[in-house]
Amino acid sequence: MRNPELSPTNYSLYLVTDSGMTGRDHLVEWVMKAVDGGVTMVQYREKTASTAQMIREATEIRKLLHTKGIPLIVNDRLDVALAAGADGVHLGQHDMNPATARKLMGPDALIGYSVETWQQAQEAERLDVDYFGVSPIFATPTKTDTGRPWGIEGLRELRASTRKPLVAIGGMNRETIAAALRAGADGVAVVSSICASEHPTKSARELMEIIRKERQAKRLST
Amino acid sequence: MRNPELSPTNYSLYLVTDSGMTGRDHLVEWVMKAVDGGVTMVQYREKTASTAQMIREATEIRKLLHTKGIPLIVNDRLDVALAAGADGVHLGQHDMNPATARKLMGPDALIGYSVETWQQAQEAERLDVDYFGVSPIFATPTKTDTGRPWGIEGLRELRASTRKPLVAIGGMNRETIAAALRAGADGVAVVSSICASEHPTKSARELMEIIRKERQAKRLST
Repeated sequence: MRNPELSPTNYSLYLVTDSGMTGRDHLVEWVMKAVDGGVTMVQYREKTASTAQMIREATEIRKLLHTKGIPLIVNDRLDVALAAGADGVHLGQHDMNPATARKLMGPDALIGYSVETWQQAQEAERLDVDYFGVSPIFATPTKTDTGRPWGIEGLRELRASTRKPLVAIGGMNRETIAAALRAGADGVAVVSSICASEHPTKSARELMEIIRKERQAKRLST
Repeated sequence: MRNPELSPTNYSLYLVTDSGMTGRDHLVEWVMKAVDGGVTMVQYREKTASTAQMIREATEIRKLLHTKGIPLIVNDRLDVALAAGADGVHLGQHDMNPATARKLMGPDALIGYSVETWQQAQEAERLDVDYFGVSPIFATPTKTDTGRPWGIEGLRELRASTRKPLVAIGGMNRETIAAALRAGADGVAVVSSICASEHPTKSARELMEIIRKERQAKRLST
């Protein structure tokens, strides 16, 4: 587990990059515009670029994010994460084993892990990972190799069964994030809501506004 | 540079894997059959499998190779190399920077680097890499994203200009390896000559026989 003396990770609005949506030439710009709108964490996810290009992009994004104190996670590719000086990796069921990743990246790395089924979530409970990506909450065209959607009720039940921070992903947008937060998600991960937006700052700001209102309502109710 | 106290690397017959040729289910078997025929070094090259699958395969191959004292190199993917306990990585012009790879893998790692042009070879001279992959010697259908072939004469000129070990790759087979060795290659890398062979042990043995004869002729002539 990550060193608890480091500042706590803010999973609230977790951006996952998609260069196919932003266009490769605009990827870094879109990320930083979204950060201006309030994004609290970024996952660099790239499946088609060369390793050299991934490292170049991730390094550029990491440098910019770190001037604002925002962590960068790299999807799947621990080599890219290490070379780019990223804060951690996000691992899926077909990626590196989380225990191996922890050994290679050390105790301070932020390691996220996607859970797609109850069985995976139960098995992952004993893993030394920092948060679960609960995937997908709803079916989505962005990622088609996932299991049956958790739904809001599934997320709520998972919340009741684990103390790991939960990041809801899949179909998260202005219409759905409030329900995910009310079901107990620590943060919501978005792809198209920001990467496919023509106004990423505005889109991020609108999402953050919803998140703030939900947090405030929760504080008032408890 | 690799610790000189380790046993010297034998680049003679350098197998590059291609699961598309062997069939994924036969990959490990083909590698070990080729080792029985005399392969001295293996590069695991895989572009389409998931990270988890690459790590599983590379780990299995590494364990088997190490019982025979043969090193395993992983193409491009330093994450897979680290997780699988491989001896090093082979990097191309679109992969991780060799200096970064050296920092991440340490002084004892075997790091290879592909040079496709004179300019790349000259720039690579100062790099802390253990050998050059001279690519391609001849045009080949296996790899199409490479530059103009070096040819045997190009290889000979490169040999005269550098002290780095040179592994000739691209179009290396029973008909061509003798010429590459006579031009000064320290080893020859083969893909289809073994991966597409129905009898990998026999094919490797035939190639090794040619290599031994060339080495013997060279000793007699000097």
